[in-house]
Amino acid sequence: MKTYETVMKLALERGFYFPSCEIYSDALAGFWEYGPTGTKIKNNFIELWRRELLRRDDMIEIDGSQIMSRSVFVASGHLDNFTDPILKCKNCGSTFRADRYITEKTGKDVPELLSGNEIDKLVNQYNLKCASCKGTFHESSRFNMMFKVEIGPSKEEAYLRPETCQTIFVDFSRIFKTMRGRLPLAVAQVGKSFRNEIAPRQSLLRLREFYQAEIEVFCNPNRLNDLPKFEQVKDTRLTLFIDNSARDISAQEAVEQGLLPNKLVAYYMSLLAMFYSRTGLSMERTRFRKLSDDEKAFYASTAFDFEVETSNGWLELVACNYRSDYDLSKHAAISKQNLNVIDPSNNTKVLPHIFELSMGIDRSIYSILEHSYYEDLESDRVVLKLVPQIAPILVGIFPLVTKDGLREKAQEIHAMLKLDYPVFYDESGSIGRRYRRLEEVGAPFALTIDNQTMNDDTVTIRYRDSMKQERIKVSDIAKVLDTIIKSK
Amino acid sequence: MKTYETVMKLALERGFYFPSCEIYSDALAGFWEYGPTGTKIKNNFIELWRRELLRRDDMIEIDGSQIMSRSVFVASGHLDNFTDPILKCKNCGSTFRADRYITEKTGKDVPELLSGNEIDKLVNQYNLKCASCKGTFHESSRFNMMFKVEIGPSKEEAYLRPETCQTIFVDFSRIFKTMRGRLPLAVAQVGKSFRNEIAPRQSLLRLREFYQAEIEVFCNPNRLNDLPKFEQVKDTRLTLFIDNSARDISAQEAVEQGLLPNKLVAYYMSLLAMFYSRTGLSMERTRFRKLSDDEKAFYASTAFDFEVETSNGWLELVACNYRSDYDLSKHAAISKQNLNVIDPSNNTKVLPHIFELSMGIDRSIYSILEHSYYEDLESDRVVLKLVPQIAPILVGIFPLVTKDGLREKAQEIHAMLKLDYPVFYDESGSIGRRYRRLEEVGAPFALTIDNQTMNDDTVTIRYRDSMKQERIKVSDIAKVLDTIIKSK
Repeated sequence: MKTYETVMKLALERGFYFPSCEIYSDALAGFWEYGPTGTKIKNNFIELWRRELLRRDDMIEIDGSQIMSRSVFVASGHLDNFTDPILKCKNCGSTFRADRYITEKTGKDVPELLSGNEIDKLVNQYNLKCASCKGTFHESSRFNMMFKVEIGPSKEEAYLRPETCQTIFVDFSRIFKTMRGRLPLAVAQVGKSFRNEIAPRQSLLRLREFYQAEIEVFCNPNRLNDLPKFEQVKDTRLTLFIDNSARDISAQEAVEQGLLPNKLVAYYMSLLAMFYSRTGLSMERTRFRKLSDDEKAFYASTAFDFEVETSNGWLELVACNYRSDYDLSKHAAISKQNLNVIDPSNNTKVLPHIFELSMGIDRSIYSILEHSYYEDLESDRVVLKLVPQIAPILVGIFPLVTKDGLREKAQEIHAMLKLDYPVFYDESGSIGRRYRRLEEVGAPFALTIDNQTMNDDTVTIRYRDSMKQERIKVSDIAKVLDTIIKSK
Repeated sequence: MKTYETVMKLALERGFYFPSCEIYSDALAGFWEYGPTGTKIKNNFIELWRRELLRRDDMIEIDGSQIMSRSVFVASGHLDNFTDPILKCKNCGSTFRADRYITEKTGKDVPELLSGNEIDKLVNQYNLKCASCKGTFHESSRFNMMFKVEIGPSKEEAYLRPETCQTIFVDFSRIFKTMRGRLPLAVAQVGKSFRNEIAPRQSLLRLREFYQAEIEVFCNPNRLNDLPKFEQVKDTRLTLFIDNSARDISAQEAVEQGLLPNKLVAYYMSLLAMFYSRTGLSMERTRFRKLSDDEKAFYASTAFDFEVETSNGWLELVACNYRSDYDLSKHAAISKQNLNVIDPSNNTKVLPHIFELSMGIDRSIYSILEHSYYEDLESDRVVLKLVPQIAPILVGIFPLVTKDGLREKAQEIHAMLKLDYPVFYDESGSIGRRYRRLEEVGAPFALTIDNQTMNDDTVTIRYRDSMKQERIKVSDIAKVLDTIIKSK
């Protein structure tokens, strides 16, 4: 049993995540908090993303404002097009997201991009009424999903960004200059984005305020196969899901067979797969699904979703889009700035194209929790098999008993480690119970301080997954932990 | 010369920070981005805050939604009281923050808490007119500084939080239960807050969207001196600025002499001072200033601002407020939830009091940059003397020349270190020029790979501040860096 509900129960009980403002009756759907353990997992996830993607590839990272000017979203198209179709009841005013409502009531798959006319036709055809009061609906309309905010006493119009990448596009020109940029240049950002979803649901899976980690690779469209570093990843195995069939293939073969359009796209998809393999996701339950023409944005020549299989079905974690020069050409046109740069490798001016890896952090966290959840029915243990780099606690520190100086010795070891490692001191309850509590939040190791410690300065290290124990010297603990964390 | 303008110039040229949406004519005042180097400095600052405050004191950290329900701000008082007085021109509509405008035009110090009547009286007395068009003003009014957002198609009223601490108050009950909390319990959060300032200015010093790092210590008001861990900090030197005079005093003496009200307050102020001493701020240019009765909030029985001296005068970095039970009692009343907890140490039910350390991150970053800025006029060097824990780059890696295999050797060392340390590879320009570039962004160390490296596998490590150089083994680099970073 690893269902959405099981994970949710653990999340609520162990401080992973819980609803925002829950003590109030006007708490709003689609807003969740990371609790103490969840915050650590989320932060660890982001640090691993920095390590395995940003530092590995020498990317640069920025951190921009979440509130952005109106012009940005004129240029991006969000002001006109970032809408969902809605149905509003004439009688009680209840509002529903039209495409989902029709699917729910008729069992038919309804494309997201349906026109208003087509929606109204379906509502009539199936004689759909309001779920709340059986009233009839107004003609369908469009609801813009951006949150508007008014700035200053003169109420200048601005918006909470619906995606972090707009910051990167708008800042590109300055970044390229001040950082002595050369194409291809990957610029990353992690931060909050905001979408006024009509029907947010399932906690971390569809939020109105959520974390994204986006990477925008600015590149010369004429040099997408001129990428020596592709050599380093060419043997990476990728699961490509194209036209309803999955194939396991190396990055190199995927380029050679034309399944991926060029080395640059294949390189970054490979880095992404390598990153996720280190987060503890079961990679055999992931895939890169190629989007069909009616799913992908009109400007995207190549679009793959990195998906993961959960108890809720396949879930999109990362959108991998080749966005061409759509973003920079729109921003250049509306801002009237020249955003061309020089590519010294062939000394030409070029408006960079963009390949993007747009990651949803909250969904990734949920998926990792679900894939890590393990119930041992025999021993009635619940174990969260998080990898050391993601676990909120790396190692528990337990005095076997609190007398005979063991407490003080354990506290001394705790103090020695706690500034540099995520350790957790616990002396309450039986040692077995302490192991259980630790396993439920995914800590991979426990150190026990016993009477032998007082004689030979060794402790027992217990490995969560194998439940094996061995003795190590107190002076070696840091080295053992470093070796585990810094594995390449 | 270490003025605001000097630091700003460096910030813009070297990717520390720059205005948001600057390519657009409707870019808004009060919104800034952290560029690639600034993002690293800001993230390092937050990591150091986690290390020196959170982990040192076994605090817990949460990360909540920025958009919060209306009721939260009914309870907190922000909906009614979080306002600034404004003057609006009858003729051209220009708006000014009243207290500041009066001070600017009359040279008189005007208290922030002036009533509307008092403001209008001053406007008449000094015959103040609109600075833009010389028009006359409407009667003064109040402008609420929260940003309102409308949620979902039914437009439920919500707000961007004006301070991160509200999340902690609202979530306290669940956190205390799920984390097996015991008083005193310190809960921390780092994240964005939003204030619709009438006249944002001076880049990071007064933003409309800004980073806070807040620590809320929930405590039993009857046991504020029952704190064994106070022993660990009792000798910490604190500069208290009370009634216009500064005294340098130990934490213990400050409590004994009644300058600080209890050990709990003194303990956390000591931790804070120790933290800042590790960020590279010149501590002799900092102080805890005791707020006078007309400066502090009515619920605060003790209020100190941790201030730093900059070229702009004394700047508040952290508000240290003993908030009593104001927050939890208001939230309990409006939510109709019982927020009492049991303190097992004397087995009583108690509504916890709160002592808070409310830190502005952006201002802290600015102050660190200003205090670290150093110009050597003789050699025409600009050096940013950032401490290793804050520096965006820890070590530069330079091949002396690119031939004879030195480039490949340098790249190999770079690859060996880059996943775990913030390193920067540079081969362009003379070695002197590369040192300069590194010094301007505050990197404390450089490694040079030369011909001797090829023979004996040693490199030259150069120390920024002393400009000394010595040879170390390649296999020892990681150990040397670890020793520097993990200093206790």
